[in-house]
Amino acid sequence: MLKDYWGEIKDPVHGYVYITACEKEIIDSFLVQRLRRLRQLAGAEYVYPGANHTRFEHSVGVMYLAGRVVENPNISQHISQDTAEKIRIAGLLHDVGHGPFSHVFEHLLVKELGKTHEDITVWLIQNSELKDIINEQGCNAEEISRLAVGRLQQPKKSFLDQIISSSVDVDKLDFVVRDTYHTGAEYGYIDIFRVIQTLDILDEDLAVYLGALSALESFIIARIESFKSIYFHRVGRAAQIMLTIALEQANQELGLTSFTTPDEYLALDDYTVWASLRENEKSKETIKKLERRQMLKCAYERTFYEKDSMVSNIFSREKHRKQLKIDIAEEADVELEKVIIDVPTVPSVPYHHSALMEPMEIPVFYKTQKGTRIPQRLSDISKLFDVLKGFINILRVYTEARYRQKVGQASSKILGEIPSSAKISY
Amino acid sequence: MLKDYWGEIKDPVHGYVYITACEKEIIDSFLVQRLRRLRQLAGAEYVYPGANHTRFEHSVGVMYLAGRVVENPNISQHISQDTAEKIRIAGLLHDVGHGPFSHVFEHLLVKELGKTHEDITVWLIQNSELKDIINEQGCNAEEISRLAVGRLQQPKKSFLDQIISSSVDVDKLDFVVRDTYHTGAEYGYIDIFRVIQTLDILDEDLAVYLGALSALESFIIARIESFKSIYFHRVGRAAQIMLTIALEQANQELGLTSFTTPDEYLALDDYTVWASLRENEKSKETIKKLERRQMLKCAYERTFYEKDSMVSNIFSREKHRKQLKIDIAEEADVELEKVIIDVPTVPSVPYHHSALMEPMEIPVFYKTQKGTRIPQRLSDISKLFDVLKGFINILRVYTEARYRQKVGQASSKILGEIPSSAKISY
Amino acid sequence: MLKDYWGEIKDPVHGYVYITACEKEIIDSFLVQRLRRLRQLAGAEYVYPGANHTRFEHSVGVMYLAGRVVENPNISQHISQDTAEKIRIAGLLHDVGHGPFSHVFEHLLVKELGKTHEDITVWLIQNSELKDIINEQGCNAEEISRLAVGRLQQPKKSFLDQIISSSVDVDKLDFVVRDTYHTGAEYGYIDIFRVIQTLDILDEDLAVYLGALSALESFIIARIESFKSIYFHRVGRAAQIMLTIALEQANQELGLTSFTTPDEYLALDDYTVWASLRENEKSKETIKKLERRQMLKCAYERTFYEKDSMVSNIFSREKHRKQLKIDIAEEADVELEKVIIDVPTVPSVPYHHSALMEPMEIPVFYKTQKGTRIPQRLSDISKLFDVLKGFINILRVYTEARYRQKVGQASSKILGEIPSSAKISY
Amino acid sequence: MLKDYWGEIKDPVHGYVYITACEKEIIDSFLVQRLRRLRQLAGAEYVYPGANHTRFEHSVGVMYLAGRVVENPNISQHISQDTAEKIRIAGLLHDVGHGPFSHVFEHLLVKELGKTHEDITVWLIQNSELKDIINEQGCNAEEISRLAVGRLQQPKKSFLDQIISSSVDVDKLDFVVRDTYHTGAEYGYIDIFRVIQTLDILDEDLAVYLGALSALESFIIARIESFKSIYFHRVGRAAQIMLTIALEQANQELGLTSFTTPDEYLALDDYTVWASLRENEKSKETIKKLERRQMLKCAYERTFYEKDSMVSNIFSREKHRKQLKIDIAEEADVELEKVIIDVPTVPSVPYHHSALMEPMEIPVFYKTQKGTRIPQRLSDISKLFDVLKGFINILRVYTEARYRQKVGQASSKILGEIPSSAKISY
Repeated sequence: MLKDYWGEIKDPVHGYVYITACEKEIIDSFLVQRLRRLRQLAGAEYVYPGANHTRFEHSVGVMYLAGRVVENPNISQHISQDTAEKIRIAGLLHDVGHGPFSHVFEHLLVKELGKTHEDITVWLIQNSELKDIINEQGCNAEEISRLAVGRLQQPKKSFLDQIISSSVDVDKLDFVVRDTYHTGAEYGYIDIFRVIQTLDILDEDLAVYLGALSALESFIIARIESFKSIYFHRVGRAAQIMLTIALEQANQELGLTSFTTPDEYLALDDYTVWASLRENEKSKETIKKLERRQMLKCAYERTFYEKDSMVSNIFSREKHRKQLKIDIAEEADVELEKVIIDVPTVPSVPYHHSALMEPMEIPVFYKTQKGTRIPQRLSDISKLFDVLKGFINILRVYTEARYRQKVGQASSKILGEIPSSAKISY
Repeated sequence: MLKDYWGEIKDPVHGYVYITACEKEIIDSFLVQRLRRLRQLAGAEYVYPGANHTRFEHSVGVMYLAGRVVENPNISQHISQDTAEKIRIAGLLHDVGHGPFSHVFEHLLVKELGKTHEDITVWLIQNSELKDIINEQGCNAEEISRLAVGRLQQPKKSFLDQIISSSVDVDKLDFVVRDTYHTGAEYGYIDIFRVIQTLDILDEDLAVYLGALSALESFIIARIESFKSIYFHRVGRAAQIMLTIALEQANQELGLTSFTTPDEYLALDDYTVWASLRENEKSKETIKKLERRQMLKCAYERTFYEKDSMVSNIFSREKHRKQLKIDIAEEADVELEKVIIDVPTVPSVPYHHSALMEPMEIPVFYKTQKGTRIPQRLSDISKLFDVLKGFINILRVYTEARYRQKVGQASSKILGEIPSSAKISY
Repeated sequence: MLKDYWGEIKDPVHGYVYITACEKEIIDSFLVQRLRRLRQLAGAEYVYPGANHTRFEHSVGVMYLAGRVVENPNISQHISQDTAEKIRIAGLLHDVGHGPFSHVFEHLLVKELGKTHEDITVWLIQNSELKDIINEQGCNAEEISRLAVGRLQQPKKSFLDQIISSSVDVDKLDFVVRDTYHTGAEYGYIDIFRVIQTLDILDEDLAVYLGALSALESFIIARIESFKSIYFHRVGRAAQIMLTIALEQANQELGLTSFTTPDEYLALDDYTVWASLRENEKSKETIKKLERRQMLKCAYERTFYEKDSMVSNIFSREKHRKQLKIDIAEEADVELEKVIIDVPTVPSVPYHHSALMEPMEIPVFYKTQKGTRIPQRLSDISKLFDVLKGFINILRVYTEARYRQKVGQASSKILGEIPSSAKISY
Repeated sequence: MLKDYWGEIKDPVHGYVYITACEKEIIDSFLVQRLRRLRQLAGAEYVYPGANHTRFEHSVGVMYLAGRVVENPNISQHISQDTAEKIRIAGLLHDVGHGPFSHVFEHLLVKELGKTHEDITVWLIQNSELKDIINEQGCNAEEISRLAVGRLQQPKKSFLDQIISSSVDVDKLDFVVRDTYHTGAEYGYIDIFRVIQTLDILDEDLAVYLGALSALESFIIARIESFKSIYFHRVGRAAQIMLTIALEQANQELGLTSFTTPDEYLALDDYTVWASLRENEKSKETIKKLERRQMLKCAYERTFYEKDSMVSNIFSREKHRKQLKIDIAEEADVELEKVIIDVPTVPSVPYHHSALMEPMEIPVFYKTQKGTRIPQRLSDISKLFDVLKGFINILRVYTEARYRQKVGQASSKILGEIPSSAKISY
């Protein structure tokens, strides 16, 4: 039971989440409450009508799982009760920097300001009403702000950052299950408590005991299938691209990226920005289409694996993509803006979850009969991991329904037919 | 398998929902797509953070359950394939008339225009783009519009209306399960397919075979517990009252109830109206408080049962409530507007679900050994129903946190201490 | 985290159950392991094919919930860590005294030996290998044995017994959820952790805070619906009666109730006794019918409520039932043994769950603004409880399929037609 | 809705399963009812206490899924209503040939009689009371018997056999979900209805449309993780080996494999054989250990992948394993019988699920824009499948707890240390 227990929050995914009076203060702040109007998976609702969950409930879930990690005796023996509480709060706040439609807006942030949502998280915690609330509760807002994005970098204590931000952090453990619950996609019911229960600290790093290997493998598979079925679904992706286009169309007039104070930034959420976009002369047509589910259509699609990393790199360069766009538009004889090249890892339409596919190692260990913990490379141990740690990338060409055939043919001509023997999936 | 099968929608509650090409056209209309921005349980998210589901997914669910009813051979033998399809579509469209924050806005509709959301549903289906879409699909928009709200009144076929609108209609069967799923409240996992499977037609009315009695009893209990724990939860109700206040504060300036065309009405949704309310000078303070979870507090609460129907009637009169408000404010020495009297069944703050508590009879029957179906009164058969069919009503006095004690004491003085022996629950 | 943590058990209902080295020793004893061969709901599998769960997993679940209760700070502040551990172990052992087919065999125990399964539990813990295991682990077997059946009766500490044995004990909280999970009946998904979280001690008794009222009401309804749909289902009950008949037929030869040592008793389980019954000349025909699902048929059924307690009392007397049996057999012109009178609360075919329907009060309390806890009578507060606290009793007459009509008519003649207006359900 | 609808069975996994009068007759036969006393996963309950589900409920589930397949219009257009019904019945009966402890007994069948459980299934359906029941219902028992084990081999209709017996048959689709439900292992909640919905017939073979690729990949992963976590779990496997030993010890006296009539074989089930084994002088010590969870311990373990198929082949030869056993026993200085070599694919302790790991191709196809269905090799398309289609094999050396260290060291000496870089998992 928590010290300073205040009450509980009922979460459909984790059940009762017990919170302290201090956490209650922070949860009721405008910054955390605003997350109620940021949907977790903007765009995915066009594929999964139930996917309307928000960053708010996810943040409470991350706090809960952070709490489960710091209750694990392998971890709790290395930290004070105070630090444990800080980690819960950092988990709660890890997403406060997100903008409308989450990763869709982050694209604008990166492109126009060179900032990620993590940068904004740090800035907001240090410069908003949260700063005072946190400090009044006896914590240090500056410290919390860095912990929330995994940048505390406390000497000899890397694991502190890794609880919130690493290849098996509580952020991912929460969303893999939560996104499954609300979409109805059935890929993500994995045994997250097995993973949490077997976490340990090796040297100064978080590592997973190999007793949880099946749970780890299921976790990585769940992430990949979620990537394909939810985050990068053809139709959900079309919705995100349309939102991106609308944001770019209206940005100059609405000044979405010219905020200078936390208050200006915080006024932006799914509700307010959607309301502005549907009124704005430049973006209203795009929104009108979204409101009638007249989605962009995918005219061409190709999946690249690690062996194609060179190819993938080419497309990650703005210049190359621009040229490709010109070539296809010319070949198809359509206006340039009717051709949209979509590659998840590139900045033009950034996608957070692409990180998933970067070479990733989850630190693991086994125990000798005497109890010594021996670190291992997961890819040495698990053939699945060995295969999956490569890059995956999907190149798509989108256009309007009426140009689908023309653009499809042009793309095939320029990018090549997709060989029937090409692997289309991990 | 459906004729004219087009594809499927993945619903976290019912699994795959298969749809026809015709349904696909209607689902993609602006009127149905708009339901994505109407939350099912406005206000409940302040109690259950996961309760962010929308009228869109509920509408798809109602269509699905309507389809299950008309597949039941007891029903299907009485209707044509065409009628079966109409009932699905009517289920899909039953909620298109809802406004922002659903029942919260309906209060304004009733008060200012004397219209319910059902009236608006009929009006919209008959006068918007949906009319043409429906007619083009070979259905009759006028007929669908009336079926959608249970007002088709086809001679000798009352059951058609009752599928969509009665004491065990597919609307209630869907939301009792769906609200449970998304809130995490555990009261509503009931055996709805048992009820649907045992539906039959007696004379011209829908009735439930007594073999499903346990499922029926669970259904009624689930509705009552949901009423207390979700729909009429003290805090969720505070949020609804605050939204109501904000809508009333801003109505004159924003002209929320002065729409004259379907387009004007349809422009109102949770997103656009929230964005307006937070900017409007008159309502912005109220929204600011909601954005920081500074909720109205309940200073006094009393539950009434059927025996108190006279008392309940008294409070349902605007005049009585106004006088009560004056008396309490005077006694507490606070401004009049700081005292809010909340009674679910009265028009001042209407609440849809109060209907639940009205004397209600679910038609049931048993079968003789020869198979004759004998109608029964459920309250004759089930002691539970007999007890529960009465009125339940909750009288609450809300105020700001700082006046809670004063207003509480004043309320007790005027309305009487709550006797410790008073039943506070069914 | 537990002191002396040993490992975990994966339970489909509660997830991971963490256990201590001491608990591991006890779990691995023959007495606890034997529970793997005692099905929780003997007979119910003929209605719900999935209902094959055993007393073993239930016992682990009860231990788990007992652990959750003693972690509740309202309780933990009143007991030592050692006592908390004892309560878990007592929960684990509460059912070790059960015989084959659980309550079916208990009927024989009561009839032949005047013993309940609780009496056997105490005897076994004090006289088997468990005694040594428990004492070696530093506990007192005698104390544990009494705690396991709620008969510790420690002065000023009634709540210790009530955790394991009372109207909201962890036994019932576990089985209401577990039976639901494995049968697929949907009546029992209730919020048991809400109940556990709000438990407190009033004077020396366990009581539930009224904040959990909805959960409590759902719990009582779940128990009633489970009673009707699972425990006392017409077909499941027929199976239990047939098992009872087989046991009585073979008892003299097999000496099922003439055990004198723990080892003799413990040799009896579902597997060994079933194997004996199917070979025994006297019982083999009965088993043969069960093996082909040729069940006894219910020829007459009538439900009695509290108002009929006099009637109910009449049938609870062996003599009255015998006379009734004679009268019906004569009237129907069938052999006496073809008529079986079934009443759940009477010793002839005892049924544990009938206790449910006895006048029952769950102690509850509310808190004043100053935090004082005021005890309440639940039936004063909850109309549902007020209604439900009465007796429910079902009188049935079973016979073979071929005599169903004759026996049904004879029963109606003697016992009266069931008035069509009679309530047939709570 | 089924023709000749009789009633429904409530299954915790699939919900209501509707059955016909004909199916009801067959379900109530002794052969199907007997499956209630054959646990699905003998041995797994020592790891997962909830894993007490039986072949009975699985068989009903397989019938249900077979019904879902033949309702899929891609399939139903190729078969008559009668054939559809036969496939359901074949699904229902596919496991009637199993013996006590399922695959554990099958080892004896193979070793002593050269028969698999499928052979017994065919024999029983053709020679027991089932034959008459089936024929009376207007089906052909001989035809059903072959369809039940996928050996109908009807010209141009290979898909008929494949529904019941292939790499994505309804048997596997049922057990992957059912075993997950009852164990609580979370690896198997996969989207089986997506797979069923996309099944089609290519030429004469069942194939899956690539739109279900994610579901297919999840299915294969679920099978692998289940293999490791459930079917071949170190402790569950120990229990199976101990059961195997007990069966072999008592076989001569009990005559378990000397049955000559269906009735003799059918008298063997988990209950009767367990009761015999615990009384038999030769096997009673082994059972006594199981009854106290004194399991054999794994002293050495090594996992082989396809590259090691040569090595794997070596161990699949009885002679090689015998020699290995001698060598280890000598080196460890323990009695020969204290060393148990366990390899899943070899006959000494056969394990059904090892089939999983054989090179396996699930036939798939994609559709061109014109709707032509083009067959594909799944391993060409899915990198995951490409990797996973190899062999997996686990070599373990078990012994009693007291010899664990000695036998472990001897095994390491003879079989080699497990290189720390060896992959221990897919």
